[in-house]
Amino acid sequence: MDKEDTLYQHGTLALLVPGLFKGTLTVGELLKHGDYGIGSVEGLDGELTVVDGKGYLVKSDGKVTEVGPEETVPFANAHYDRETDKYQRTNITKNDLETEILKNHDYQNIFFAVKITGTFKSIKTRVVNGNGKPPYKTLAQTALDQSIFEAENMPGTLVGYYSPELFQGVASAGYHVHFISDDHTFGGHILDYELADGKVSLQRFESLDLHLPAHDSTYRKFEFDYDETDEIIKGAEGSGNN
Amino acid sequence: MDKEDTLYQHGTLALLVPGLFKGTLTVGELLKHGDYGIGSVEGLDGELTVVDGKGYLVKSDGKVTEVGPEETVPFANAHYDRETDKYQRTNITKNDLETEILKNHDYQNIFFAVKITGTFKSIKTRVVNGNGKPPYKTLAQTALDQSIFEAENMPGTLVGYYSPELFQGVASAGYHVHFISDDHTFGGHILDYELADGKVSLQRFESLDLHLPAHDSTYRKFEFDYDETDEIIKGAEGSGNN
Repeated sequence: MDKEDTLYQHGTLALLVPGLFKGTLTVGELLKHGDYGIGSVEGLDGELTVVDGKGYLVKSDGKVTEVGPEETVPFANAHYDRETDKYQRTNITKNDLETEILKNHDYQNIFFAVKITGTFKSIKTRVVNGNGKPPYKTLAQTALDQSIFEAENMPGTLVGYYSPELFQGVASAGYHVHFISDDHTFGGHILDYELADGKVSLQRFESLDLHLPAHDSTYRKFEFDYDETDEIIKGAEGSGNN
Repeated sequence: MDKEDTLYQHGTLALLVPGLFKGTLTVGELLKHGDYGIGSVEGLDGELTVVDGKGYLVKSDGKVTEVGPEETVPFANAHYDRETDKYQRTNITKNDLETEILKNHDYQNIFFAVKITGTFKSIKTRVVNGNGKPPYKTLAQTALDQSIFEAENMPGTLVGYYSPELFQGVASAGYHVHFISDDHTFGGHILDYELADGKVSLQRFESLDLHLPAHDSTYRKFEFDYDETDEIIKGAEGSGNN
């Protein structure tokens, strides 16, 4: 196995549900596990997209900055980019493309990355607006206060992952994709798009390297109630998951 | 992080539920990820316990053999032994000891290993009797055909893991422990015990390195139905989980 066969993840989606938004891994550490990725930052104060070894944070006011190595994340994924399939695709919606991928590949029970570089005829993102400081709200409360951004004919990169159904709660089951424009002025957690023309790259993984915030006593002691986790993740992570 | 901070797992408990018992990793590969561990073998034809870098398979007729590196496993865990806590404990039941560990350590949301070396006043194990060849039965059907073994004043080693509740299905949530006697003549999946006198070692992990059988097309294509997975795992994995 090579390092490109592994998807790295810090934290779980489920720990965000009750509001454990403390950053428990630095971006510097995250970037030791890949050059592409997605995530959030402490306080859920924006949406993180890692492209070519650099992390871009989109905040709810729409501003995009490159994050430094000392910034921390409560939840993030990263992987070393080495596509296992690629093809050019034009004029297709998010839903159709995601359905097509699973129709053409028997990847439903494994983790894989999706990367699209190209021009999006239309793209709609959301950026959560965590207040950045404790006490934190819950994920559902935070998702109520989010900004929606829309753009047309936007060149950029989509980065994200598909997680099998069994891993709902560990991750967000199904697709979870972020976007950053080529000029680094537009991005966020993708709600919808229509791709005009782009290169679709898939990368299947053999392993999930799941790192838990085992040194954070708040996490260790927390009494989770998973009864509504599925419902809350589906609600908060938006139409991006199918 | 050191290699001792990671729990390796091949496969998921959930893939055993509908009967995906094909061995998809060799024991030789498994032993590259640890010197202690537990698991099953192809066909669910026995219970595997890894101690000091050697894998011992107990079959449903009670016979114990050391498994060779070419033997294959559908599901197994391994880790490199380096205790993070240890203490001597006398005259305590399985249930009381497992409850005491979680009372004394805030480990409920992390993975940790349990190892006990000592003498068990009484110990009760089960060994499943998979037929070893496809077509395989389901896990629930296989668990109906199992042997129960009991012993008294038995010196040996308990090896196993605690997995947080969120990971039910990925693993068997709660404790999952196996046993092999010092003389390698008695063992299996532990249902119950009373420890007479032993050294209890705990080893907390930061990461779960989860390797899926991504090269097995039967696994990749399988249409899982997780509706009853929790119930079936609790039933099949016995009273060992709390």
